[in-house]
Amino acid sequence: MKHHTENLSLLMDFYELTMANGYLANGLQDQVVYFDLFFRKIPDGGGFAIMAGVQSVIEYLENLHFSESDLSYLRSAGLFREEFLSYLRDFSFACDVWAVPEGTPIFPMEPIVTVRGPALQAQLIETMLLLAINHQSLIATKANRICRAANGRPVMEFGSRRAQGPAGAVYGARAAFIGGCCGTACTLGAKKFGIPAIGTMAHSWVQLFDSELDAFRAYAREYPKNCTLLVDTYHVLKSGIPNAIRTFREELLPRGCRPVGIRIDSGDLAYLSRKARQMLDDAGFPDCQICASNALDECIIRDMLIQGAPVDLFGVGERLITSSSQPVFGGVYKLAAVEKPDGTIVPKIKISENVAKITTPCFKNLWRLFDLDTGKALADVVTLHSETIDDSRPYTIFDEEHPWKRKTIEHFRAVPLRVKIFDHGQCIVKPRPVQEIQAYCNEQVALLWDEVTRFEYPHQYYVDLSQALWEEKNRLLAHSQTEKQQTVAFPEG
Amino acid sequence: MKHHTENLSLLMDFYELTMANGYLANGLQDQVVYFDLFFRKIPDGGGFAIMAGVQSVIEYLENLHFSESDLSYLRSAGLFREEFLSYLRDFSFACDVWAVPEGTPIFPMEPIVTVRGPALQAQLIETMLLLAINHQSLIATKANRICRAANGRPVMEFGSRRAQGPAGAVYGARAAFIGGCCGTACTLGAKKFGIPAIGTMAHSWVQLFDSELDAFRAYAREYPKNCTLLVDTYHVLKSGIPNAIRTFREELLPRGCRPVGIRIDSGDLAYLSRKARQMLDDAGFPDCQICASNALDECIIRDMLIQGAPVDLFGVGERLITSSSQPVFGGVYKLAAVEKPDGTIVPKIKISENVAKITTPCFKNLWRLFDLDTGKALADVVTLHSETIDDSRPYTIFDEEHPWKRKTIEHFRAVPLRVKIFDHGQCIVKPRPVQEIQAYCNEQVALLWDEVTRFEYPHQYYVDLSQALWEEKNRLLAHSQTEKQQTVAFPEG
Repeated sequence: MKHHTENLSLLMDFYELTMANGYLANGLQDQVVYFDLFFRKIPDGGGFAIMAGVQSVIEYLENLHFSESDLSYLRSAGLFREEFLSYLRDFSFACDVWAVPEGTPIFPMEPIVTVRGPALQAQLIETMLLLAINHQSLIATKANRICRAANGRPVMEFGSRRAQGPAGAVYGARAAFIGGCCGTACTLGAKKFGIPAIGTMAHSWVQLFDSELDAFRAYAREYPKNCTLLVDTYHVLKSGIPNAIRTFREELLPRGCRPVGIRIDSGDLAYLSRKARQMLDDAGFPDCQICASNALDECIIRDMLIQGAPVDLFGVGERLITSSSQPVFGGVYKLAAVEKPDGTIVPKIKISENVAKITTPCFKNLWRLFDLDTGKALADVVTLHSETIDDSRPYTIFDEEHPWKRKTIEHFRAVPLRVKIFDHGQCIVKPRPVQEIQAYCNEQVALLWDEVTRFEYPHQYYVDLSQALWEEKNRLLAHSQTEKQQTVAFPEG
Repeated sequence: MKHHTENLSLLMDFYELTMANGYLANGLQDQVVYFDLFFRKIPDGGGFAIMAGVQSVIEYLENLHFSESDLSYLRSAGLFREEFLSYLRDFSFACDVWAVPEGTPIFPMEPIVTVRGPALQAQLIETMLLLAINHQSLIATKANRICRAANGRPVMEFGSRRAQGPAGAVYGARAAFIGGCCGTACTLGAKKFGIPAIGTMAHSWVQLFDSELDAFRAYAREYPKNCTLLVDTYHVLKSGIPNAIRTFREELLPRGCRPVGIRIDSGDLAYLSRKARQMLDDAGFPDCQICASNALDECIIRDMLIQGAPVDLFGVGERLITSSSQPVFGGVYKLAAVEKPDGTIVPKIKISENVAKITTPCFKNLWRLFDLDTGKALADVVTLHSETIDDSRPYTIFDEEHPWKRKTIEHFRAVPLRVKIFDHGQCIVKPRPVQEIQAYCNEQVALLWDEVTRFEYPHQYYVDLSQALWEEKNRLLAHSQTEKQQTVAFPEG
């Protein structure tokens, strides 16, 4: 039997293992630590990203275990203590994990996932947390851009053949659905996640028959209720559309069926769709939909629609499934704090000469403030975990880098954005149907101001630190400057 | 148990299934067809690509079967005949498959894979063939560029956390190794394919100790023989290198060990590596290697080396594992011929108004001609499958689009590039160790002229058609023009 999920437990950078073994060697394995996962830049210069990949993180963490084969492999490296291999053999996940739910609009520098737990464990899971969130948030974000460009017209995910590996296709299809796609051509993804599988014919179907008309007729007879014909194998306007119309008349109408659509997969899609629309209308098929595909993305779709192309739905392949214009979502996973045995939390900061790479220390929480009049999202605020934002009173937000830029908000609702998904190693949430996630995503994106959802040079949504967190960060920054000079030990030679 | 490989059989575009069912409905299921897999454009404007993904194709085809769960799912779509579902239940792969071996330099428009077999089957396998070859050839090609830029210095694949899904990481690591990388940080990939796993520490290691020096000492004590220290957590030159030198002196030398290296992961790597080299040399560690990482690719590596950066090895992440500058390898799978019951092969051509999209018909073979004096590859020639290139006599090659451009080659060796990997559905080749594939790749790239391996505006390697194939293609092109006008059936209204 080959029907099971592959054990991905060892899908980790090797240094997670050398460090984990080293923590054990130094008695640090149970040191409680806090790691944050955040990203620094929104792909494609957009105004927001869409969170995805949390369900994959949950499945990875629930299945995390090391087989005898894994242990023998690691032993053969000659680097690891037997004590460490035993730890892995008996591995029992014990961390707490908080995450922003899938489908939520997310912004740079927000702690979209936080892990609290033994250093050894929190370290080991870094790679897969990043991989899952980076990949799926990337695709959900791109899909959302493309679907917004299509402005209500359905977008179908067609990219499996150009995906980066099988999981790129399958989990990419899921992320694309979260971002707003109406379905996928990826049958395995459709089956696995219960989303619509979409597809009719390729050029090879048309070529295998003696003529295009024969091919169309044969298809219409087999699928009279689901008849979408690919009309560009030879010549869209001179051959494809006329043959399609003849097929609709001679094969569908006598069976009491109407055509679903035609698909154009090459040529100038704006020009061809206009001509095709006219021919179909004139022939009495104004209900026949026009589907366009071929190297589409949000830019081309938007341009086509501005030019009035009468396209009813879009099939989008490689540029969606790889987010080809920007194929990397740069999430990182950084130490934010350590917890002493007495429960005191000691914040940690990573200093960099590149100011954008300085981390925000402490065990934190993340809030979204909504205007009670418009319902719109006003700002996100990162606070100490122990803080509460009291939305019954005015609240002042300010820019982290330019703290004199202040704004006092009233009449708002403050919502914590993250949900605890693991408690001491136990998953405490149920998987949400992907349809529900898609609907939630759609709702939440609608709560952003148009200025933030603009494709080009969007307004930068406010992500601010609370006064207390800002003060703590600046205290640590000042302290680190002093400390660095003290700990430097230049060799005397 | 969750240790098995997932069943990927349904990883196919849904239209493969609607077409396959339609072939059965029309009695075409056993029609023998020939499909070619080829690509049109080399990523990054390079002069050649590297073939990879064949082993994944083999594993997919060997495991291709449909479970009861798959069949129930398909039945629920309400589109498929029971006869078709029975065919899938009893699915027995029966095709012949030829493929260019992994690691071979490949060029646009070459039939790098050909499938011959029943139309239903040859159609169904399209998606996974494309997915595997597209993904892995993309990464092998990118890795080869990066390794050539590093000019003999080892390149380590570090990209798992930014890969597009788990398979993107695991199979990407394999493809990167084929292209020339010395190892991977992806532990699962390293274990699965028997390639070196590489990694030491992240910034979190340094942060978890009371000071950088404590962190370095602890690491050196645990891994005295494998001590590479990450020196940029605080300040490379003022803190990282001095603390590393002190650690080497006080922890390694007394144990009779030498340092392996230091790693710099931020800042200006050219500047920092020069300064670091000087400090290490002055301190008596000229053997301590300098590893650079952080958003590297072939362009940055080449520039750094031109500037004389004394970097000994490179860790390359997101830009390799996603081939971020061009994340799509545009392989396509097109019908080339059908075979009549009497064995006659009828060529098929796909016409397009875009000349570059016209396919080359017929059951074909692919040859590489090597100069006997230099050993260098002179040209590739695509012939009819029945043709042989007799390298004991002069052979004239010519440009397909400008057939007056002719060149007669003498004193050469003609080598068929493809290997038959499936015979009537049975795999007839053994998996090759990935080390052997890497060595072969290296050898074969060395047989290309420098003009072809140049990064910018390389010379376009000759990929020509034989006279017989060229004539057949032109005959079909002329014929299709006539036929198109005949088969058009414009509706009268």
